[in-house]
Order: sequence, then structure tokens, then C-alpha cells
Amino acid sequence: MPKVSAEHLESRRRQILDGARRAFAHHGYEGATVVRLEAETGLSRGAIFNYFPSKWDIFYALADEDQHLVAELWLEQGFTAVLRWVAEQKPEWVGVYLEVHRHLRTNVALREQWMQRAPDVNERLREHLLEQQARGELRADVAADDIGRFLGLIVDGLVLGASVGAEVDLEPLLKLVVAAIGPQS
Amino acid sequence: MPKVSAEHLESRRRQILDGARRAFAHHGYEGATVVRLEAETGLSRGAIFNYFPSKWDIFYALADEDQHLVAELWLEQGFTAVLRWVAEQKPEWVGVYLEVHRHLRTNVALREQWMQRAPDVNERLREHLLEQQARGELRADVAADDIGRFLGLIVDGLVLGASVGAEVDLEPLLKLVVAAIGPQS
Repeated sequence: MPKVSAEHLESRRRQILDGARRAFAHHGYEGATVVRLEAETGLSRGAIFNYFPSKWDIFYALADEDQHLVAELWLEQGFTAVLRWVAEQKPEWVGVYLEVHRHLRTNVALREQWMQRAPDVNERLREHLLEQQARGELRADVAADDIGRFLGLIVDGLVLGASVGAEVDLEPLLKLVVAAIGPQS
Repeated sequence: MPKVSAEHLESRRRQILDGARRAFAHHGYEGATVVRLEAETGLSRGAIFNYFPSKWDIFYALADEDQHLVAELWLEQGFTAVLRWVAEQKPEWVGVYLEVHRHLRTNVALREQWMQRAPDVNERLREHLLEQQARGELRADVAADDIGRFLGLIVDGLVLGASVGAEVDLEPLLKLVVAAIGPQS
């Protein structure tokens, strides 16, 4: 058995994730068959499923990457950057999320796993909101969790629009969001 | 050929729509086969497709009904009633909308038709928002169209959550929405 470096393992994992992202975007979650995953990744099914137990695990890893990226954007550049990022996503890729949502609807175990994903990220965002409240940058008469859920709702709404390629004017949207959650005069 | 009354035609149409709504909710849009539509409506395919040219037209008629209902709620009882209505919808039925969204993504003609549906309703809602601005009930420094799009985004976000049965606390949400679009002090 050849000795493989951590670097090689990571580069293979990357290759699978990038190829799978293309396969999901082009063909949808259901439509991304093993044959198509092989074609887009340039790897055999044996190699692919050596890294990930199932197709679901590959998608889950991609969603986890997205969530961490969004959280970094949020923490470092603010919620505006998050909205901009969502609005810039390709409808094809956003559509995969909607398709997955449909699966979650009928699979309780999967849904539980999905809802609990990246608890570290959620905890950091929660702390960030609490700090903003303490600094007076956000209204404090609504719980941080409720503000977080409200912002999540805005993102979800944008996602649904983005899936059919709806154009969004972010400036008025941001003005309204700031009025909703900013300090109330 | 027997003479049929307008009343009879309307009652048959109702029977088809109610049965189809159940079929879509139970089996999804794709999964609502002709056989299942027959079972849920209690009518033959001949009878069903005598009233509607295609399965899409049946779904479109149901979505049109929903949209008119939501508009009436909005105009008569306010946006709160709309949010309450969305939050009360069965995840199964909401999921059909998401599934349809996926079809719209890959079908330009269908998407155009969908986006332009019920222009009368949209026009009435727009006038309603303009009147509210004129009366000082809504902020006037953001265009009525942008306020309308913002509220639509909130509804879409709720829809996505409702599709996986997420619980929503409407009180803090409404408080934030009011702060966003209400007169700014």
C-alpha cells in the first residue's frame, strides 16, 4: 500500500468536492448520479466513496463549507456581505439547496442532522450579535436569537428568489434591515 | 349531449382542485401521477383534463387561489395575517411550491408566466402600500415597490422554513418587520 501524505489526501478531497459541486449545480442533487460524479471529479467511484461514505455526505460537506464561509463573511464584513454573497450565487447551485430541503421534509433523521449542523458557527454568530447589542449597534429590546432568526429568514427569502434568478436591489433591502434591527430611536 | 349548468361545472372544477391539492401535498408535484390525481379527485383522467389542459394548469390554478387568498388577507387584515397564514400551512403543501420552483429554474417560459401571475393582485397590493405611505402608516423614504419586495422576501423566507416544519415565533418577527417598514422617528 503506497504511503500517502496528508497533503495528497486533502488535495483529493478538494478535487472531489469541487467536481461534486459542479455535478450538483448542473444536474441537481438527484440527477448527480455516480457516473456524473465520476465525470466531474475525474475520479472513480471507488476513490470518491473512499473519502465520503455517501453522496449525502459529499453534499453535506459542501453545505458545511458554505456555512463556514458565510459565517466568516458575516463576522468580518457584516451582514451586508452575506446578502451580497447570496445574491451572487448561481441559481443552479442555490436550486440544489431547495431540492435538498425537499428531501429533509420527508426524512426526520436527516433533518435533525441538518438543523444541528455547525453548532460552533451558530454559537459564534450568537455571541457576535450579543456583543453588538452590548455595544449599542443592535437593538436590545429583541432577543439576539430572534434577531438571528430574522436575518436567517432574510437569507432564506433571498435564496428562494436567487433559485429562479430574481434580481434583487440590495440597497433598499439593507436600509430596511438596518431599520429593523438597529438601535431604535 | 347532456346540458350542464354553470353550477355543475363549478362544482366539478372545485372537486378537481381540492383532490389535486391533496395529491400534490401527499406525493409532491412530480409524484402526483395521473392515477393518483384520479384517486384523489374521484374522477377519470378524461374528466380531469376536460377542465384543465395539463397537470401544470391545475397546480397553477391552486397557486392562483392561494395568491388571491393571501392578497385578501393582506388588504383586509394586514401583513400579520399573511405571516400567520404562511406559518400555519402544512409543510407538505409548502414543499410543493419549492418543488415547482425547481422546475421554474430550468424552464424560462414557465418562469415568465409564473412571475407575471395575478397582475391584478399585485397592482392592488401596490396601491395599498402607496395609500399606507400617503397616510403615514409606512415610511415614505423607501419606494413602495421596495417595501413590497421586502415583505415578499419575508414570506419566502417563512415558506422555506415552513417546508421543513420549522417553528416560528411571530411576535418578535412582526416587531422587527414593523420597525423596518413603519414610519421612522
